[in-house]
Amino acid sequence: MRASRPAVHPVEAPPPPPAAAAQAQAQGQGEGEGVAHPRGVRMKDPPGAPGTPAGLGLRLAQAFFAAAALAVMASTNDFPSVSAFSYLVAAAILQCLWSLSLAFVDIYALLVKRSLRNARAVCIFTIGDGITGTLTLGAACASAGITVLIGNDLNICAENHCASFETATAMAFISWFALAPSCILNFWSMASR
Amino acid sequence: MRASRPAVHPVEAPPPPPAAAAQAQAQGQGEGEGVAHPRGVRMKDPPGAPGTPAGLGLRLAQAFFAAAALAVMASTNDFPSVSAFSYLVAAAILQCLWSLSLAFVDIYALLVKRSLRNARAVCIFTIGDGITGTLTLGAACASAGITVLIGNDLNICAENHCASFETATAMAFISWFALAPSCILNFWSMASR
Repeated sequence: MRASRPAVHPVEAPPPPPAAAAQAQAQGQGEGEGVAHPRGVRMKDPPGAPGTPAGLGLRLAQAFFAAAALAVMASTNDFPSVSAFSYLVAAAILQCLWSLSLAFVDIYALLVKRSLRNARAVCIFTIGDGITGTLTLGAACASAGITVLIGNDLNICAENHCASFETATAMAFISWFALAPSCILNFWSMASR
Repeated sequence: MRASRPAVHPVEAPPPPPAAAAQAQAQGQGEGEGVAHPRGVRMKDPPGAPGTPAGLGLRLAQAFFAAAALAVMASTNDFPSVSAFSYLVAAAILQCLWSLSLAFVDIYALLVKRSLRNARAVCIFTIGDGITGTLTLGAACASAGITVLIGNDLNICAENHCASFETATAMAFISWFALAPSCILNFWSMASR
């Protein structure tokens, strides 16, 4: 009797053969933190990728410096008279909104311990990062060109808010420097899947 | 006697099993145009990648528009008085040299029918494209900011070469738009190997 009783205890699945494990690792099929995967198969998110504490820090830094550029530029009363400064304000608003939205997504992913290695999400993040990054860099460079023209080429800083313009431009550049790693990491994880 | 004679005729290698072929294709291990690969294993270079006619066309377009921006800007006699315009000239020279060098590499690769899917070469191409692209975009945006300031905000086009400045800025932007696909394709092929 005892020998023919079926086994009702849960049995562990046998480990996959080494070739299949290596293939799965090469294709990066490790989605979902909560799903049980065979040991050594799941790819770890690199630091700075969406859904990691470093990624959240990058997003908060982007939003903070974009908000600082916006605040400093808006504190001058004559920025609307120069198109490039108005464009910087618009680009900083867009950058701030985009980074804050993704920061909230990161906070949610960290709270529910979910990985954000979804193909469509990474694609949207990459395209959005690319567009906002290009706009922010363009606005920062245009403002830098005008600031250098006012301060160094024409020497009319006495009648302009050169310090504010320079600070806002520097903040926009720092925001772009914080955005670049996010964009590169997202594009990398999109291409390497 | 005849049955025991060893076969000296060249024999074709047996086709690889489907799983191994799919794995090799996923990892993109298809380098070298001249090396004989089993059928269906070698990844084709996407159009626009280095070593393809479309890639050569992109490089020539980048070099041509950068040279046009340089020539138009240098034809005005007062560009050195504005830092952003001098920076545009410098960035256009760098862009032109970089794109011409890579165009010669592409021509060589096309002539000897070699693929340029070498890991180190693609890495160098990507980093160089990223740096020159950022510099060109920055210079174009700075020049655009100054051009808009002169033409629209201050309305002093009568005493400046507004048409030349605008043409040079547009050429720099077009050069950057031709550079972006090369950079994205190189980065993609670097990440997906």
